[in-house]
Amino acid sequence: VQAQDPDFERRVRDSFAKQSVMRLLGASLEQVGPGTTAIALPYRADLAQQDGFVHAGVLSTVADSAGGYAGYTLMPAGTRVLTTEYKMHFLAPAQGERFVATATVVKSGRTLTVCEMRVVAERGATRTLVAFGTQTLVCLRPDAAP
Amino acid sequence: VQAQDPDFERRVRDSFAKQSVMRLLGASLEQVGPGTTAIALPYRADLAQQDGFVHAGVLSTVADSAGGYAGYTLMPAGTRVLTTEYKMHFLAPAQGERFVATATVVKSGRTLTVCEMRVVAERGATRTLVAFGTQTLVCLRPDAAP
Amino acid sequence: VQAQDPDFERRVRDSFAKQSVMRLLGASLEQVGPGTTAIALPYRADLAQQDGFVHAGVLSTVADSAGGYAGYTLMPAGTRVLTTEYKMHFLAPAQGERFVATATVVKSGRTLTVCEMRVVAERGATRTLVAFGTQTLVCLRPDAAP
Amino acid sequence: VQAQDPDFERRVRDSFAKQSVMRLLGASLEQVGPGTTAIALPYRADLAQQDGFVHAGVLSTVADSAGGYAGYTLMPAGTRVLTTEYKMHFLAPAQGERFVATATVVKSGRTLTVCEMRVVAERGATRTLVAFGTQTLVCLRPDAAP
Repeated sequence: VQAQDPDFERRVRDSFAKQSVMRLLGASLEQVGPGTTAIALPYRADLAQQDGFVHAGVLSTVADSAGGYAGYTLMPAGTRVLTTEYKMHFLAPAQGERFVATATVVKSGRTLTVCEMRVVAERGATRTLVAFGTQTLVCLRPDAAP
Repeated sequence: VQAQDPDFERRVRDSFAKQSVMRLLGASLEQVGPGTTAIALPYRADLAQQDGFVHAGVLSTVADSAGGYAGYTLMPAGTRVLTTEYKMHFLAPAQGERFVATATVVKSGRTLTVCEMRVVAERGATRTLVAFGTQTLVCLRPDAAP
Repeated sequence: VQAQDPDFERRVRDSFAKQSVMRLLGASLEQVGPGTTAIALPYRADLAQQDGFVHAGVLSTVADSAGGYAGYTLMPAGTRVLTTEYKMHFLAPAQGERFVATATVVKSGRTLTVCEMRVVAERGATRTLVAFGTQTLVCLRPDAAP
Repeated sequence: VQAQDPDFERRVRDSFAKQSVMRLLGASLEQVGPGTTAIALPYRADLAQQDGFVHAGVLSTVADSAGGYAGYTLMPAGTRVLTTEYKMHFLAPAQGERFVATATVVKSGRTLTVCEMRVVAERGATRTLVAFGTQTLVCLRPDAAP
């Protein structure tokens, strides 16, 4: 996979820095490459659902951003990215010290991009796939409406 | 729709109160009825994505809880509820003073429940459907593993 | 809902007539209105899965066409429609003499359209919701690539 | 991945042989292994949508069966398998002489199984990923209702 914008990493990191909800959740952008990203989320008790596990929606939030930015790495400079839909499966309770959402682009088109996302829980030396899913993104160009 | 547990509302409200992420986001449980709930989320700047709109994952978090609790109203006392998967569509930018996620049960089975969720943005007197989707829940009984 | 192309019904019926798989399955286009369609599918033993019920994929095929044409009613003359993704839930065994897939447009945009689809089984006087889901369509204009 | 039923392949092939719609479509079960299957579908003009490509629903039908049987390989003898939901993305026009749907199990639980499916179009020496998606299956045991 080749990014057409050589400055894609700075563009992605600038946009991530504007996602105020990532600071609220304590998430950080760990990796950015052409067509792929990783976002890390340390466990905090205030991210939990009723059983003390991280809420499925919180896992989805970091997975959605991971996918959005994986797609955005391959979009041209001057564009914006929006999620049009995603689906997530939750495979195991989100227990762990840290969660890492990774995303990769499956298909990058002029208007639409499709990504896969995975969320792994880190618990000591154990790595457990706790969530995964797929996503559709739209690339908004300065000269066009969606 | 008839709830088999007459005490379903207290059971749902107790569980919601344990979802610490709802306090973090500022969400509140507005309505609970048999097979339906509504969760309200006032706008806050720290819930935003890069354009200042509420992040799709945050909308999903309240929609997922709305659906989970809509399903939980119809489950028996002594059970637990987990989301196994959901899908959300994002139809318009999440702009507004307040967002309300409503959910209704489409099918309630012994083990599996399917819900529909909708998120409406309130902006002055305007109401805009900004997101909607579907969800599968599993009912965990004390005597059985999923 | 208002169709911008007054000739939308003929356009939809012409396209449906070209879907050779609809003849293979025995499906017919029952209703076409602005933002909505219905497709009927009589039961046949050669549409079945291993238990004798209509295969989930066959229900999806008629639901996908119902949604695609519901969206197509609202697209301009001279365009084409493609499904980019859909999700279907299967709620009950697809038993019955006849199945009717209905679809309605939830959001119609310049490029993307989102629909809801439902499939009802008719068994004597009984009507059972056996499947439902959501879909994203793309409108291909003569002057643009997707 | 290890199948608990040593006779899983015969069990899967017997069930596939009962799916009459597979004969209608001309699909055949190419491979069966623990947690994985492949189904082949030669192109036929009567499987097409309005542009002559294989209908998205037909691709989904073989993908759904591929996933269902991938999951079924890991289920115990004496059980049945049903799809509760799936989502498919369509990435490119389904053009080719032959299509192969492959599926792998992502998570196999006592009641629920989650699979990934991919459909590749074969056109001369070219292989194109035309569709992919995810699926939830339920394992029905003789002694329990879903």
